[in-house]
Amino acid sequence: MQEFHNELRTGADIQLPSGFSFAGYRGGIKKDKLDTAVIVSQESSNCAAVFTRNKVRAHCVVRNEKLVDRGETVKGIIVNSGNANACTGEEGEGNNERFAAAAAQRIGCKSEQILTASTGVIGVQLPIAEMEHASGSIETGSSGEHFLAAVDAIMTTDTRRKCVSCRFIAGGSSFTITGMAKGSGMIHPNMGTMLGFIVTDAPISAPSLQSSLKLVVDETFNMISVDGDTSTNDMVLLLCPPGDRGRFSCEQERMDFLSSFHSALYDICRYLAVEIARDGEGATKLLRCRVEGASSLQNARTLAKGVIGSSLVKCAFFGEDANWGRIIAAMGYSGADFNQKAVSISFRNFDESRAITLMKRGTPVVFSEEEAKKILSQQEIEIFIGLEEGSASATAWGCDLTYDYVKINGDYRT
Amino acid sequence: MQEFHNELRTGADIQLPSGFSFAGYRGGIKKDKLDTAVIVSQESSNCAAVFTRNKVRAHCVVRNEKLVDRGETVKGIIVNSGNANACTGEEGEGNNERFAAAAAQRIGCKSEQILTASTGVIGVQLPIAEMEHASGSIETGSSGEHFLAAVDAIMTTDTRRKCVSCRFIAGGSSFTITGMAKGSGMIHPNMGTMLGFIVTDAPISAPSLQSSLKLVVDETFNMISVDGDTSTNDMVLLLCPPGDRGRFSCEQERMDFLSSFHSALYDICRYLAVEIARDGEGATKLLRCRVEGASSLQNARTLAKGVIGSSLVKCAFFGEDANWGRIIAAMGYSGADFNQKAVSISFRNFDESRAITLMKRGTPVVFSEEEAKKILSQQEIEIFIGLEEGSASATAWGCDLTYDYVKINGDYRT
Repeated sequence: MQEFHNELRTGADIQLPSGFSFAGYRGGIKKDKLDTAVIVSQESSNCAAVFTRNKVRAHCVVRNEKLVDRGETVKGIIVNSGNANACTGEEGEGNNERFAAAAAQRIGCKSEQILTASTGVIGVQLPIAEMEHASGSIETGSSGEHFLAAVDAIMTTDTRRKCVSCRFIAGGSSFTITGMAKGSGMIHPNMGTMLGFIVTDAPISAPSLQSSLKLVVDETFNMISVDGDTSTNDMVLLLCPPGDRGRFSCEQERMDFLSSFHSALYDICRYLAVEIARDGEGATKLLRCRVEGASSLQNARTLAKGVIGSSLVKCAFFGEDANWGRIIAAMGYSGADFNQKAVSISFRNFDESRAITLMKRGTPVVFSEEEAKKILSQQEIEIFIGLEEGSASATAWGCDLTYDYVKINGDYRT
Repeated sequence: MQEFHNELRTGADIQLPSGFSFAGYRGGIKKDKLDTAVIVSQESSNCAAVFTRNKVRAHCVVRNEKLVDRGETVKGIIVNSGNANACTGEEGEGNNERFAAAAAQRIGCKSEQILTASTGVIGVQLPIAEMEHASGSIETGSSGEHFLAAVDAIMTTDTRRKCVSCRFIAGGSSFTITGMAKGSGMIHPNMGTMLGFIVTDAPISAPSLQSSLKLVVDETFNMISVDGDTSTNDMVLLLCPPGDRGRFSCEQERMDFLSSFHSALYDICRYLAVEIARDGEGATKLLRCRVEGASSLQNARTLAKGVIGSSLVKCAFFGEDANWGRIIAAMGYSGADFNQKAVSISFRNFDESRAITLMKRGTPVVFSEEEAKKILSQQEIEIFIGLEEGSASATAWGCDLTYDYVKINGDYRT
């Protein structure tokens, strides 16, 4: 289950779908770093989207949701980092409109065809005049360099680029799907925490696109946690050419095509989600919690996320301390239903080089502290939880809680 | 609202109710510290109790709940620290029975009249033979020293004693109520996280005692958070002489008596709850979140606890960074219902020496970073959230998130 179905490419090897161009540039928020990205769709694209469930929503979230709901086709996305433009009142709402309008003017489309996204400090007004000025000279392109500049421009506390592509064959044609994401702190998604932008040249109807994205996000971006905090600005946007252009001769062919697309989208989103967990603020270890044998999918997911989200579990992994009692305590308060006497807990490394069982059917197992230390000193550790109640399973990803998380977030603004 | 109604006494000035004796001794878990406490009731006491809502429950929680539910009167409580005796299977269940039986034998009562409590590492068997041996020589007494030894014996990562007493007059008589608590990490109570033991010489019927405790716990112990983790072993037990012994000539007199008792119990529990928050693992600052003007009590409490529980808010206070955007983001994902445009946010010190407004009716306020720094550099800081939706209010207490929290919990077992 942990293998990808499709071959993925990242970094300099990334592949881009036809029909899209990109730019990353200095828009005037950060002093010496790229802070603004644009993604331009040559044709009008269909758009699927998921947004934060935080009740406090940034202006970009509110505006995009309205545009996507009313079925506007999309010509572009403009994104800034360093300023969330959230909780900035009417002035902030107006600035968000101006941000979209500036991109629309440059691209040559209606303002309603531009989606906006912002990430950074909450409650501070955008330097919108500078940003408008900067957008006048956007030069988009379809090269890997253009794309990577856009990826760089959306980063805040991220320490590494998060982008990935894959090719898939369907109905005798080859398609490309490519995604970028940013996220490192304030990560405990609930309908897509963090920013993610995905583009493909596979033509898919808007309803199919949306249902595919929703299913995939629930298994990927919604199954990671860095700190239990959910942001006001989170969204995942997915663009593709509209309609299926009478491509299919029968329903079966259409279903096969959608299935290939769905598998590729899943791999893209899972890769990006895991990279966000790995790059959690201050993290030294990537943690994965795998739950099997749960009585329902909901219980499996709640248990996996409950364990991954516990501050005490995260500290124990940072300290390489096999304090598995904190895992079962976190299961207990997660809100999931399970039988304590059916619980088995193991630790193992991702490469399966080492494994150790700590609890077997509700009873502690005597284990070697030395062997535990060898597992816990690696950078990729799986917490395996076996239940004997049903056939549902789920995986959540997270990271350890370290001094550096506290340091990074003690003086984020300054 | 932040003043206590009754005069409280702590430390060497503590007052004890008649009818109870105490001991703290080495039971064989810790190498060089007190680790076991007993509280003995000379008469058979009524008992009220609240227990953790964690679905994984220690043997002591399961056993006590059964005894309290079936209305057993109580002759004593025996408590150990350093070992939670949770998730230890049938052997652990038997050891918990033996723990109670040893105390019963020493005190001279039925095993069913002894309640047990444990706190410490999960999943490790008790050294029960040593503990039984040690209980043979318990010497209880009614002095302040005996009481304080018991307080010391229940501490784990606590850095200071948590105990308090007050006297109240009702119906022409004077009564004393005295409580002790332990708790520093794994604190996010849900029906009484941490251990708390409260005794009084005021005679109260079991139903009145239970309803008073439940109401008070919801406003005090259930309104603190250190790390969002809820333990498997938490409980608050409250003992008093049974019945009201025909003390009252009319219903009004009885109601006045209960009201005085309730007010004293509230002060005792609030004091202990705040001390637990202040002593949060690694904490340098005590935080209080006060919400006023909410549309319902539930919303007020959820908002206050949501803000106090946010890792990012806690880091910002550690770093003395006035990053109030994290506060409104935490409000947004708390699950409470509120109107974003009605939110005002201020910081002020407990002593009201300084105050600063950061958001006014949903719009950011330009504030002095210098003044903010002065407030945030103090050890006691209130986050005040004003809404304009109703008359409900609530207060939650917590602490900052520091390097030392990570350090303490990185190697808790070793």
